[in-house]
Amino acid sequence: MGKIAVIGAGSWGSALALVLADNNHDVRLWTHRQEQAEEINNAHTNEKYLKGITLPKAITAFHDLKEAVQDVSHIILVVPTKAMREVCQELKQVIDHPVTITHASKGIEPSTYKRVSEVIAEELPEELYSAIVVLSGPSHAEEVSLRQPTTVTVSSGNLEQAELVQDLFINEKFRVYTSPDLVGVELGGALKNIIALGAGISDGLGYGDNAKAALITRGLAEITRLGTSMGANPLTFAGLSGVGDLIVTCTSHHSRNWRAGNLLGKGNDLDEVLDKMGMVVEGVRTTKAAYQFSKEQSVEMPITNGLYRILFEGAKPKDVVDQLMTRGRRHEMEELSNLLGERS
Amino acid sequence: MGKIAVIGAGSWGSALALVLADNNHDVRLWTHRQEQAEEINNAHTNEKYLKGITLPKAITAFHDLKEAVQDVSHIILVVPTKAMREVCQELKQVIDHPVTITHASKGIEPSTYKRVSEVIAEELPEELYSAIVVLSGPSHAEEVSLRQPTTVTVSSGNLEQAELVQDLFINEKFRVYTSPDLVGVELGGALKNIIALGAGISDGLGYGDNAKAALITRGLAEITRLGTSMGANPLTFAGLSGVGDLIVTCTSHHSRNWRAGNLLGKGNDLDEVLDKMGMVVEGVRTTKAAYQFSKEQSVEMPITNGLYRILFEGAKPKDVVDQLMTRGRRHEMEELSNLLGERS
Repeated sequence: MGKIAVIGAGSWGSALALVLADNNHDVRLWTHRQEQAEEINNAHTNEKYLKGITLPKAITAFHDLKEAVQDVSHIILVVPTKAMREVCQELKQVIDHPVTITHASKGIEPSTYKRVSEVIAEELPEELYSAIVVLSGPSHAEEVSLRQPTTVTVSSGNLEQAELVQDLFINEKFRVYTSPDLVGVELGGALKNIIALGAGISDGLGYGDNAKAALITRGLAEITRLGTSMGANPLTFAGLSGVGDLIVTCTSHHSRNWRAGNLLGKGNDLDEVLDKMGMVVEGVRTTKAAYQFSKEQSVEMPITNGLYRILFEGAKPKDVVDQLMTRGRRHEMEELSNLLGERS
Repeated sequence: MGKIAVIGAGSWGSALALVLADNNHDVRLWTHRQEQAEEINNAHTNEKYLKGITLPKAITAFHDLKEAVQDVSHIILVVPTKAMREVCQELKQVIDHPVTITHASKGIEPSTYKRVSEVIAEELPEELYSAIVVLSGPSHAEEVSLRQPTTVTVSSGNLEQAELVQDLFINEKFRVYTSPDLVGVELGGALKNIIALGAGISDGLGYGDNAKAALITRGLAEITRLGTSMGANPLTFAGLSGVGDLIVTCTSHHSRNWRAGNLLGKGNDLDEVLDKMGMVVEGVRTTKAAYQFSKEQSVEMPITNGLYRILFEGAKPKDVVDQLMTRGRRHEMEELSNLLGERS
């Protein structure tokens, strides 16, 4: 099978590399850390990011970006949203033939409000890629690397290329579906991290499953509202990359956005939390972007608003969550029919 | 405040009685077991159903139905769906003035496919009640009795009476919203138990959060499809009594439908499971009803179908779940747009 480069050797990049290797592809996994490349090539492990997993030998790690992408037909970008522009600028220097770009990063750029595919399209000249595809869905890397059953969605403006990417990844345990709604698939993955922070805070405060379910339900309505105002099909939020990813991220202790929220709920401030996590917490930047956008566009987002106040203005988690639980509205449909209104 | 009778002293009936007592109502809790009534009146506990909780003294338990409903303005019915007709037939003999009937039972009657409010309306003469109201939402009884934050929805053909019931129950920890969609609120609560059985089976088989999130997402689409064909507003399934209740029931070990599924996934057959549970598992009968209805109406329900085969035809849980995970469709929107089609 063909050569594929996976750019970014965190948990998710490594797990996707493993799926591709299981499917008999020649996988080149790029990392900016020399010693991590050596660990992957020599010990076939990536202990910090995929504890206890032996990586397939068909994965070769590279520290040199040019070597990593040589002769590949597909590049899978799995770097933090924050690093995406820089990585693309470096890629521009080293790609010497058109490739398909797939990204599996979940975020929105603060201040520009750009989705990841938009950032990539701004940084890479059109002649270097045949399509930009997103891969998203309810998929903890740890479970994927254990070959637990998992479903994801791929989407692209070029659906034919999305189907090619579907073919690369699909196997008996890793099921891949296509969607025509690139905007919705990208936004579902990004915005759910906001609600995951909130769910973690609720759990950190010692509240139970009832409170968390209410928060997730309201959160889904809220991110659907924002997503629709940004051009998504609201129905996409009812799918795997929407409610599916939202549920898995909010209810599983694997999720680092949930874990960050949990620490916040237990009384740590943002700096302490980011320090303890030692990994990127996409939801923090996404909350800022969504908060700013919702203010500009007058989209009502009470949960995002509350989280922004906790993260950036020192509000107390308990005050914010209690306030969200006891807000004035008495008719649930007032809130839900906002969605219907925007849909019709 | 007024006198209110709660009929049924299981976990949920007792928890709702506790909320009403917290709101200073005079609560009469009826149980068909004499010794349970004595425990509640003497020890102010209901250990089998609400372990470790001290019930408020404003709750008086009754074993005599006529005494329980004397002079009450509201009756809250919280008995298993299976017992609803019989209880209503007994109530008919002892109600001597019009009351508001609220029910908090989650099921559909097999073979008739009737919702609980329809069953009540068939059994009670119209002159005995001013309205039939449903109360539903993501609400484990255990958490409600610990005064953890909880949200529920009430609905009725008579929205004014629903608002009266909202006023009875609402307090700082127990938030009550109204919805005009009685059919959707009842069906969301009933049908989610089918998916909870499936989620329990997936967990019992040792599958992870990714698989369960996929199952819940597909399950939500499936119950929305069935609910819509039974007259519900599809949007209601995006609310507290829909996806909210679905999430809490599928992801929390408090849920007895999840627990029953978990035992099935671990290799027990249905009789063993029901025996071990020792409480009513509404999802079993609801699966049968939904399966039969979906066959008659040609509504596609692969998860319900698979569960029916496990519960009643001896199919192996692993075979069914693996088959659900690898079914043919490649385009997620095919499935989701079924919903949109039915909505427009």
